[in-house]
Amino acid sequence: MAQKPSIPKGTRDFGQLEMARRNYIFDTIKSVFSLYGFQQIETPAMENIGTLMGKYGEEGDKLLFRIQNSGEKASLAPEKGLRYDLTVPFARYVVQHREELSFPFKRFQIQPVWRADRPQKGRYREFYQCDVDVIGSDSLLGELELIQIVEEVYRRLGIRVCLHINNRKILAGIAEVIGAPDKIVDITVAIDKLDKIGVEAVNNELKERGLSDEQVASLQPILNLSGTTADKLTALKTILASSEIGLKGVAEMEEIFDLVNSQLSTSFNSQLSTFNLELDLCLARGLNYYTGAIFEVKALDAQIGSITGGGRYDNLTGIFGLPGVSGVGISFGADRIYDVLTELDLFPKELQSTTQVLFATFGQDELRYALRWAKELRANNIAVEVYPEPTKMKKQMSYADDKKIPYVAIVGSNEMDTNTVMLKNMASGEQQQVTLEQLCTIL
Amino acid sequence: MAQKPSIPKGTRDFGQLEMARRNYIFDTIKSVFSLYGFQQIETPAMENIGTLMGKYGEEGDKLLFRIQNSGEKASLAPEKGLRYDLTVPFARYVVQHREELSFPFKRFQIQPVWRADRPQKGRYREFYQCDVDVIGSDSLLGELELIQIVEEVYRRLGIRVCLHINNRKILAGIAEVIGAPDKIVDITVAIDKLDKIGVEAVNNELKERGLSDEQVASLQPILNLSGTTADKLTALKTILASSEIGLKGVAEMEEIFDLVNSQLSTSFNSQLSTFNLELDLCLARGLNYYTGAIFEVKALDAQIGSITGGGRYDNLTGIFGLPGVSGVGISFGADRIYDVLTELDLFPKELQSTTQVLFATFGQDELRYALRWAKELRANNIAVEVYPEPTKMKKQMSYADDKKIPYVAIVGSNEMDTNTVMLKNMASGEQQQVTLEQLCTIL
Repeated sequence: MAQKPSIPKGTRDFGQLEMARRNYIFDTIKSVFSLYGFQQIETPAMENIGTLMGKYGEEGDKLLFRIQNSGEKASLAPEKGLRYDLTVPFARYVVQHREELSFPFKRFQIQPVWRADRPQKGRYREFYQCDVDVIGSDSLLGELELIQIVEEVYRRLGIRVCLHINNRKILAGIAEVIGAPDKIVDITVAIDKLDKIGVEAVNNELKERGLSDEQVASLQPILNLSGTTADKLTALKTILASSEIGLKGVAEMEEIFDLVNSQLSTSFNSQLSTFNLELDLCLARGLNYYTGAIFEVKALDAQIGSITGGGRYDNLTGIFGLPGVSGVGISFGADRIYDVLTELDLFPKELQSTTQVLFATFGQDELRYALRWAKELRANNIAVEVYPEPTKMKKQMSYADDKKIPYVAIVGSNEMDTNTVMLKNMASGEQQQVTLEQLCTIL
Repeated sequence: MAQKPSIPKGTRDFGQLEMARRNYIFDTIKSVFSLYGFQQIETPAMENIGTLMGKYGEEGDKLLFRIQNSGEKASLAPEKGLRYDLTVPFARYVVQHREELSFPFKRFQIQPVWRADRPQKGRYREFYQCDVDVIGSDSLLGELELIQIVEEVYRRLGIRVCLHINNRKILAGIAEVIGAPDKIVDITVAIDKLDKIGVEAVNNELKERGLSDEQVASLQPILNLSGTTADKLTALKTILASSEIGLKGVAEMEEIFDLVNSQLSTSFNSQLSTFNLELDLCLARGLNYYTGAIFEVKALDAQIGSITGGGRYDNLTGIFGLPGVSGVGISFGADRIYDVLTELDLFPKELQSTTQVLFATFGQDELRYALRWAKELRANNIAVEVYPEPTKMKKQMSYADDKKIPYVAIVGSNEMDTNTVMLKNMASGEQQQVTLEQLCTIL
């Protein structure tokens, strides 16, 4: 036969079990979003190229997939591109529909995005993003709700996590007080290595990155910060005393931690907790984009990096001409969550099969008999399959095996005479003759 | 401010209410699919261009959206295309994964497809398809299950429908016995106009389409078919006596109707029924593609054309080198179903809001108080929002109005003192002071 067909590199087919597991993740996340009044929207896969170009930096522009009608000449520059993330389309959506929306606007969006990246393990050219944002309010309740959502989602999924939180304003304050406002990133990157390479090496790296001895010296109190979050924030207030923005950042963090402590489950931050919130001054994620809180979530029991992240932005819609709209959002990494649940074997076993019983029959009359039973069971909302022909019993059985169907109801003339079926438990192998009523109860 | 951003013509944004309603349609359909053991798969938005080209005819090739990496030169011919339907990717999937699949393979797939059609009312360049197929068995149980699924889905949605069914083999038989095997389509199209233009006009049209007087004469018994389905099938057996394929088609229809009558709800085909199954010899949908049964579903109370359709195909996977695999499937038209439910006002009212109560507060202390209540309610799986700032009550109220939130819990110092909230029913306008326990019961 012809050569086997294939799909473009970096893309994936999702089979039945993968889909059941992915839907389990998305349904869990959705149900938590809904508890907080976030509502779903969807935007088109293709946006006008002008909506996308220049929003992701020069590198990003190169990774855009462009679209052209087959009818058009190849030479004709295509004017549409595939969605690269959910953030820019969301900004476009808010500006385009602002008259219809009521603010604060709480939305979530779960759709695939496409990037012409070099495919490699764990990096795909098509993958789903799962974003939740509240826009049109600068209240820190937004940060609180996102933190609560993270705790609830991962509690329901059974994944122990640490939510690292930082604040862009604090980092700006630090750079300001040591007199190197342009060096925020260098400083953060260097501090980030403190645990690994120690204070001496960090100081040397800071100097290599162009900080003066005085600046490095003035940074020492921050490198030596220790104690509880409260202790650190108190110390920062002294260190950042001369920086207005720095103090603003500390104040924001104090309020967020205060709100969180007043809200989260009592087990919060105890050793037994499944959730930890940690002030992490090294967290510099999306620094040129976020303006306040910065979030990053790591699984405690799996080495896989960030599985959720986000932050506060003060000018998302500015790129489309609507300035001064503040928002805060996070994005759940479905593929990585999938990998963590797999590694820790946390997917519910029920996901392996949707069908609860298969009817296997010895002849045409038995087949009709099975169809009548199937109708009754489905009326009781039980998922049933009837093997479509009375073929070899072995073949019908292995179909149930392959589909991981827990029960097979075998129908022969004897069962028809006694108005029963022979029910086989595929796990234990044991069989029993049951009536329709008994079958309903068992299932 | 800058010019408002927009989206490509023929594409759509889906807001919160539209999404809730679309999810209601898809969830209803999915839950019925699952009752019959169909399982979900997903395929990539982009397929290798070779997988798509030549599968939809010359016109179809022109309507393919082609993709190229932004990095690549525009002159470089793109080698990928966007999914044009779910059928060809499904065939590709079955051939590519055939070793992993257990047959008969029952799958459903709900994903967007893209066509570079000229956009017009009700025709979009991006729209969802919702396909369900069983492949790898020629048992007519496949047809039965699809008919049962159609009945169940539309009963749950509350839409009265008629399922028109025909058989390609019968049409082939008719063309054969009148000696015009190449004229199937012409004959069917002409017969289709019988009700509108009458038998004389139909006969003239048949002659214009190249049938001889003898052929037209020999077609008269078919034009004059009347009575019940059983009567028609009996008559057809005489008319098609000399055509093997024609008789095969009649036999298939007899078995399908027999299976259906033994299965469907007793109200079936009665005047009160929400579902009718009708043998329709004029139905010629996808004639060059289907090989057995052909289905088309029309809503009885809305003029909108077909809302579901499909049929039996004997060589879907042949295009990818795996011949002789028979299957049967149908596709639900989500956009048209949406329009019917809107026209008949059948969407559940609950879809208008997910949030059950909004907390509106008079100050910061009240805000903290509300947050504690919100936490309790969410623990009871009640969807709650807390307005993020204690701003003007009017503003907080109109937020609840805009989002169609049924209850607002107002918190002032008085409520805090008495450990209650003032609960306002937004529909009736009436207010009552309630405790947390009372609130849980009300919601």
